Amino acid sequence: MSKTDHSNNISTPKHLAIVGATGAVGIEMMKVLERRNFPVASLRLLASPRSAGKSLEFRGEQIVVEPLTENSFKGIDIALFSAGGGISKEFAPHAVKAGAIVVDNSSAFRMDAGVPLVVPEINAADAGSHSGILANPNCTTAITLMAVHPLHRAFGLKRIIASSYQAVSGTGARAIEELRQQVDEISQGRPVTKDVYPHQIAFNVLPHVDSFLEDGYTREEMKMQNEGRRILHLPHFTASVTCVRVPVYRAHSVAVTAEFENPVSLEKAREVLMEAPGITLHDDPSKAIYPMPIECSGEDNCRVGRLRLDCALPNALTFWVSGDQLLKGAALNAVQIAELL
Amino acid sequence: MSKTDHSNNISTPKHLAIVGATGAVGIEMMKVLERRNFPVASLRLLASPRSAGKSLEFRGEQIVVEPLTENSFKGIDIALFSAGGGISKEFAPHAVKAGAIVVDNSSAFRMDAGVPLVVPEINAADAGSHSGILANPNCTTAITLMAVHPLHRAFGLKRIIASSYQAVSGTGARAIEELRQQVDEISQGRPVTKDVYPHQIAFNVLPHVDSFLEDGYTREEMKMQNEGRRILHLPHFTASVTCVRVPVYRAHSVAVTAEFENPVSLEKAREVLMEAPGITLHDDPSKAIYPMPIECSGEDNCRVGRLRLDCALPNALTFWVSGDQLLKGAALNAVQIAELL
Repeated sequence: MSKTDHSNNISTPKHLAIVGATGAVGIEMMKVLERRNFPVASLRLLASPRSAGKSLEFRGEQIVVEPLTENSFKGIDIALFSAGGGISKEFAPHAVKAGAIVVDNSSAFRMDAGVPLVVPEINAADAGSHSGILANPNCTTAITLMAVHPLHRAFGLKRIIASSYQAVSGTGARAIEELRQQVDEISQGRPVTKDVYPHQIAFNVLPHVDSFLEDGYTREEMKMQNEGRRILHLPHFTASVTCVRVPVYRAHSVAVTAEFENPVSLEKAREVLMEAPGITLHDDPSKAIYPMPIECSGEDNCRVGRLRLDCALPNALTFWVSGDQLLKGAALNAVQIAELL
Repeated sequence: MSKTDHSNNISTPKHLAIVGATGAVGIEMMKVLERRNFPVASLRLLASPRSAGKSLEFRGEQIVVEPLTENSFKGIDIALFSAGGGISKEFAPHAVKAGAIVVDNSSAFRMDAGVPLVVPEINAADAGSHSGILANPNCTTAITLMAVHPLHRAFGLKRIIASSYQAVSGTGARAIEELRQQVDEISQGRPVTKDVYPHQIAFNVLPHVDSFLEDGYTREEMKMQNEGRRILHLPHFTASVTCVRVPVYRAHSVAVTAEFENPVSLEKAREVLMEAPGITLHDDPSKAIYPMPIECSGEDNCRVGRLRLDCALPNALTFWVSGDQLLKGAALNAVQIAELL
């Protein structure tokens, strides 16, 4: 075979479908496909009957959103799912049966042994072993691991203790509107309307993301350990996380203390972080340069900063990472997985 | 001596002064003195020449704020200082010379071996050994230690890894106004004005509280370890903290992982937290009950919740604490120290 065969193979245009096209992540998926010049032969937009009939623009053309049915996947090569775990569980098998490969952004299949859970910068090779479905990791997990993985390669990861600062867009469009409305209500002295979150989110923080497990952690908090073990190929890795919703519109941040098997050095840590794909070191505190959610919004790369030798744990580094959870935590990572196929 | 001597002694009315009376903490100090029926013989309000001449109400009477000078402390028994480290360093010695006992809310004397650093619920006995000055701890440290101390007594504290979610009122009245103004500017589509913080605080989070040290931690972050060692009498205690400013008006929150020398149990932890003074256990996640800054604002007690066995560190507990940093973190603790005298 000639040298060009491989690249020809990559760029063979694909017939794509997006399930949940009208959601926050679905819309980002279209933008990412455009921005990365993904070879799209055709794009089918699928959503609930309620959203069907709307038109969305893709590469200058209007595409009418169709209602999702069992028969939506005929002729589709790759289906990007982002419409919640229930929809994925019900419709991904139909997509696979119709011959499509599914890249699923929900948590439905992430822990299935037969489903690769992939962050392309970390474990791209895992994508090769799929049986029709590949899973996209949890947003906070993906953003954190982007910074942790290069350090793991250098020093051998043992465990993580982390606290998150998660934006309302992680909950969806209604949560964005709820924050906006509450801010207006407070500035006008009116009572605060609560609908999406159990408590006021404006000018408050909620140590509550996803539902609670019996041991007192939330499902969201345990994803770092459960998904991290699969992505990093570290079956004994442990992670204790506190996930907190903050009144930020977009981009998640995480304060991370990572303990390693081997001695760490700041020089080496900086070096591997600067060389790693998909992350940018923003770390000059004397000039007030550190990652912040408002600067990471809309940016593909995750930003890492506040890097320091941990003063309480030996062989440990503490740092701060921010990333756009709609991009690296969802749409970008899903399209990157599709690029691997 | 009769049994009543001691209580008579406590209630002998004192001549008080508040330095920094017009600041956020100074105003809270007056409210706390009123609320706790502190035996006040007279109250002198002191501030910068700029604020002097204003009148503030105390127990139904108007008191005119006087300009702070070297001679302000004649006849004063107890002077509560909350006007920044520079003012404390310059004027506390004059107060002591005039015969007053100083309770200082700044960081000026906290690490001086001859100055007791006191959280009355934890180390009240230390107050006895003062030489005229007693120090009030950092707000985030005080709030965190209120929850940590009962657990330390039960299990023997080894180290802490923590991340904070700190309100803008910790910075002062101008920061409260800056958040309010930025929210208005954003809702009106106008450019955002930055003055107090180096970056926008509205709908953002800043991993930057206080100034940076050479090792990459901030001064604020190291206070937990440095002040914690003195308050807990644990010279080898270590604490790795990431301090983060969040767009909340009042009350700080901290996600804490505390590792102990001895095995921990949730039952025992709950028991000691329920019995401990100054804290309230708000911990029923299934009913969305956990500490939140908007509920702790104006409340003397700190709230503890999200208590769980740590899944990454042995002999460790992870929990969430919120407290009003103007009260337990400042004014309340200072008045409680004055009550010990």
